Amino acid sequence: MTTDAYLADCRARLAFDLLSHTWNAVLIWSLREGPRRPGELRERIGGISPKVLTETLRRLEFNGLVERHAYAEAPPRVEYELTALGRTLLGPIDAFGAWAFEHGDEVMAAQARNGG
Amino acid sequence: MTTDAYLADCRARLAFDLLSHTWNAVLIWSLREGPRRPGELRERIGGISPKVLTETLRRLEFNGLVERHAYAEAPPRVEYELTALGRTLLGPIDAFGAWAFEHGDEVMAAQARNGG
Repeated sequence: MTTDAYLADCRARLAFDLLSHTWNAVLIWSLREGPRRPGELRERIGGISPKVLTETLRRLEFNGLVERHAYAEAPPRVEYELTALGRTLLGPIDAFGAWAFEHGDEVMAAQARNGG
Repeated sequence: MTTDAYLADCRARLAFDLLSHTWNAVLIWSLREGPRRPGELRERIGGISPKVLTETLRRLEFNGLVERHAYAEAPPRVEYELTALGRTLLGPIDAFGAWAFEHGDEVMAAQARNGG
């Protein structure tokens, strides 16, 4: 495929837009081991507010990446789980995580050099 | 590494923040074959304004991913080129691009199902 086709294709834009919400990738990653309740997700992910967590989960549901399960227990229980489609994103997200571990220091050094 | 360490590590956040500007990834990809002038970049990438292109290039320079070369010719010539650090991002970006080609249709189908 040519560069132009790659850049012009709206599916490629879509992938980058999905990642343009930082929390999307973090949430998908935090669900990789199985279903989790919202409280567990908040514990796992430092620094996410309940409101932002809810918005992110809804966005991922809308995009077919996450499913919500509500169980009629006492007290009622809600869990979120990756769909099969959501699981296909784990590989690319891991590639970025690995990159960050290998090269994150270099980016921070560049920022410091440039007065950041 | 544990999930918690992964999520809490600021280098991982950094990687996702870099991707949180959609244009960053698109610009890095469009420079993968070698140095390019701003006008060439605008041609290659549909839908980016000169202002946004300049902002994106400055952000990538600030993060040590892109270098600016100015040549004292008549007329003066300016080119942008990926640094060695910037090139290390091509693999992870390609992983997302490939994902988009394979699964983008499924995401769009989910959005349509969900009234998007």
